[in-house]
Amino acid sequence: MKHSTSPLSELAARTQAPPISWLMTAALEHPKLISLAAGFTDNPSLPVRETRELFRKILASAETGAPALQYGTSAGDARLRELTAARVRQLDGLPADSPAASDRRLLITNGSQQILYLVAEALGDVDDLVLVEDPTYFVFLGILQSRGLRARGLRLEPDGLDLGHLEETLERLRQSGEIRRLKFLYLVSYFQNPSGISTKFEKKVRALQLLRRYERAAGHPIYLLEDAAYRELRFQDEPARSALAVSERAASRVIYTGTYSKPFASGARVGFGFLPEPVYTAALRLKGNHDFGSSNLLQQLLAAALGSGVYDQHVVRLRRRYTQKARTMTEAIRRHFPAAVEWQAPGGGLYVWPRLPGGMRTGLKSRFFQRALSHDVLYVPGGLCYGDDPSRRKPDCEMRLSFGAADEAGLEEGIGRLGVAMRELGL
Amino acid sequence: MKHSTSPLSELAARTQAPPISWLMTAALEHPKLISLAAGFTDNPSLPVRETRELFRKILASAETGAPALQYGTSAGDARLRELTAARVRQLDGLPADSPAASDRRLLITNGSQQILYLVAEALGDVDDLVLVEDPTYFVFLGILQSRGLRARGLRLEPDGLDLGHLEETLERLRQSGEIRRLKFLYLVSYFQNPSGISTKFEKKVRALQLLRRYERAAGHPIYLLEDAAYRELRFQDEPARSALAVSERAASRVIYTGTYSKPFASGARVGFGFLPEPVYTAALRLKGNHDFGSSNLLQQLLAAALGSGVYDQHVVRLRRRYTQKARTMTEAIRRHFPAAVEWQAPGGGLYVWPRLPGGMRTGLKSRFFQRALSHDVLYVPGGLCYGDDPSRRKPDCEMRLSFGAADEAGLEEGIGRLGVAMRELGL
Repeated sequence: MKHSTSPLSELAARTQAPPISWLMTAALEHPKLISLAAGFTDNPSLPVRETRELFRKILASAETGAPALQYGTSAGDARLRELTAARVRQLDGLPADSPAASDRRLLITNGSQQILYLVAEALGDVDDLVLVEDPTYFVFLGILQSRGLRARGLRLEPDGLDLGHLEETLERLRQSGEIRRLKFLYLVSYFQNPSGISTKFEKKVRALQLLRRYERAAGHPIYLLEDAAYRELRFQDEPARSALAVSERAASRVIYTGTYSKPFASGARVGFGFLPEPVYTAALRLKGNHDFGSSNLLQQLLAAALGSGVYDQHVVRLRRRYTQKARTMTEAIRRHFPAAVEWQAPGGGLYVWPRLPGGMRTGLKSRFFQRALSHDVLYVPGGLCYGDDPSRRKPDCEMRLSFGAADEAGLEEGIGRLGVAMRELGL
Repeated sequence: MKHSTSPLSELAARTQAPPISWLMTAALEHPKLISLAAGFTDNPSLPVRETRELFRKILASAETGAPALQYGTSAGDARLRELTAARVRQLDGLPADSPAASDRRLLITNGSQQILYLVAEALGDVDDLVLVEDPTYFVFLGILQSRGLRARGLRLEPDGLDLGHLEETLERLRQSGEIRRLKFLYLVSYFQNPSGISTKFEKKVRALQLLRRYERAAGHPIYLLEDAAYRELRFQDEPARSALAVSERAASRVIYTGTYSKPFASGARVGFGFLPEPVYTAALRLKGNHDFGSSNLLQQLLAAALGSGVYDQHVVRLRRRYTQKARTMTEAIRRHFPAAVEWQAPGGGLYVWPRLPGGMRTGLKSRFFQRALSHDVLYVPGGLCYGDDPSRRKPDCEMRLSFGAADEAGLEEGIGRLGVAMRELGL
C-alpha cells in the first residue's frame, strides 16, 4: 500500500462512495422522481414556524443571543445535555438520579451519524469485527467498510435479533480465536432501518448477557450499541419499549445513541450518545479533534424546543402524521403489489421492507431497479443493507421503501408505479 | 497493541486530551478569570440582530423554511458553495471562471476544523510526515498526534516561512528516504495562529515549487495546505494578500481552507475547503461517513448573510473592532511588560506572541503560568504550539495572547496582571 503513486491514505483508498449520497443527490436533482429511497423526513411537518419563534426568542437580546453565536465545549451545551438526559429518562420511566441516563455520560454530536463514526473510531482497528443485524443501516456499513472493520450479520426475527444466531456466531468466533477482534454489537433497536423491526427488551437483555459471557475469551469488554434513531417515531397504537441502558450494570457496556434529526428537524443535525468509560473520554477527545463541539446555535435551538414543550408537541404531531403516512403506504402496497410480495406493517420509523418473490432481484443493476427508475420511482436496494459477511450469500430480493419524504399522493403513486413495474416483469 | 484488555482502538489509545478543551472549559467555568487564552471571538460584536433577521426571512414561509430544516448533500448547499467561491475570488481578484476558486472544488464543513480533520484522514497514514510551521495551530498538532502522523517544524521569519529551512528539511528527508512519507505542508498563511505572522505570496509560490521538486523522490504529490482561517480578520491599514491557489497549475497541489466562524459567528460552525482531486473525492466520501453533510439551517444562514450583503458589512465592522482591540492589547503590553520581552504587533487575526527573556518558561507547570493563574489570567503556553520534532528542542518561553474574547478593560487588566507576574518573578 505504501510508496504507491497515490497520495491518499489507506483509509481514503478504502473508502467507497456512500450509496446514500447518490440517492440523496438523485432525489434532490430529479424533482419529478418519486423517491421512496431517501430517509428524508416529511417536509410539510418540519417545524418552520416553531423554529422561527424559538430563534426569535434566543436572538432577542445579546444576553441569550451572543452565547448561541459563540463557541461552546466539545461535550455540548450543558442545558441541552440535561434536557436530553431528562427526555431519555422520561421515555424509559427512569428516576432523575439514574446513573445510566445521566448527562455526565452524554455527548452532543452532529446528528447521531457523528456519534456512530466516533464510536467506530474509538473502538475499531482495521480488521476488527462488528456484529450487525442482517439487514442493517447501510450508512453504518459504509463507516465500517471505510475504517476497515469487518461486519458479521445476525439474522432478524419479527421480534428482533435472532439470539440463537448470536450465540452460534459468538461460539464460532471463540473457536476460531477471532473473538479477540470483536468490539461491539450494533443494534438499530427501534423500528429498524431498514426492516422496521424492533428488538424487544428481553432480547436486548439476553444479547448483552451473551456478549458478557464471551468477554473473557475476547480479552476486553464487548459493547452493545443501541441506535435509537427512530425511537420517537412510534406510531399511535404501538406500545412503548424500554432502552437497554436502564441499570448501572448494563450501562457499563451499553452505548445508546439518539437524534433530534428525525423527530424534530434533520436540517438541524443534532444527535447524541450516552457512552460508558473509557469510550466516552475517547469519543470526546476525538470529537474535539473533529470540530471541537457542535454548533451552539443549533444546540440552543434544541434546548429551547425541549425546555418550552415545543418539542413534545411536535413529536405528538409527527407520530400522528407518520402513522397516517405509513397507513397510506401499506394500504397502497396491499392494493398494488402482487400478493406474493412479502412484507410486514411497521410500528414506527420511516420504512417498509418488502421482499420480491421468485428470486426477482432488486439491486442497482437489476431489471427491476431499472424498470422502477424508468417509471420515475426510486427505492433503496436491499442488498446495500447487508454487510460483506463471507459466511452467507447476500440477499438481494428486498427493497427499503420510505414513507418519509414523499407526500401521500406521492406514496400512493410511487407504490402504484412499483406495482406496475412488478407486473411488467411477470410477478 | 492488539489483544490488550483495553477495548479502545489504537487511534483512541493514542489520542490525548486536547489542550484547547481544558482551556475553553476553564474559561467557561471561571467567570472571574480573564482569558487571553481562548481563540473565542469578540462577544459584543457577534451578529445577534443580523442572525435573528436572517432567520426570520429564511423561516418566514415553508417554501424557504422547510429546505433549511431538511437534509442536504454531503458537499454542501449549492448556493452557499457558489457564494463562498465568489467571496474567495473577490478576495483574490480572480475572474468568475477561475478554475481554482470554483464551487465544484468546494466542500462545506463544520468549521474549518472539520476540513482539516478530513484532509488528515484523506492523506495521512500512521507514521507519515507533515511539515508545519514552528510554531503552528496547536489543535492541528492534536489531530496529527491522534492520527499517528509526525509533524516536522519549519522556522518562521517575520515575512513567513523560512524557505532555506524548508529546502534543507526536504533535502534531509530525501537523503534519509523519509520523503516517501511526506504528504503535505501545513501553512496558516494569514495572521498565523499563534504567531500573527503572514507568509508573503512570493514565499508561498516558492514553497510550492520546492515541494514539487521533491515529488519524484516522494513518489506521489506533496500538497500545500493553506489554512486561511484568519484571512478576513485583516486590520484596517494592512495590505491584502493573495492566496496561493490562483493558477490552475497551483490548484492541483494546493488545499485552501477557510471558515465563517471567525469573521461571522463561531457558534454557527460553518467552514469550507477548496480541494484538488483525488483529495476532494476522498474528503467528500469521508464527510458523508462523518455526518452526511453539515446543517442546512446554518448553511442557509450563511448563504443569506453573504447574498444580502450582511456578511460584508459585518466583516467591515469586525475588522475595525479587532484593529482597535489589538491596539489596546499592544499598547498595554508596551506599558506593562518589561522591555526585554520580545513581541511584534500583528496585522490581523486574534493573537500576539510574546517571548519571555532569560529562559523564563511559560509551560502549564512553569512558575510563570502558575503565577499568572494565581492572578486570574490565562494564556496558551507557547510550547503547546510546537510539534514533537526530535530534530530540535521545543521552545517553551513564549505565550499566545488572544485579544478576541476579553473586552477592552479585560485586555488592559489581563496584560497588567501578566506584567505584574513577570515583575514578581524578577523579569
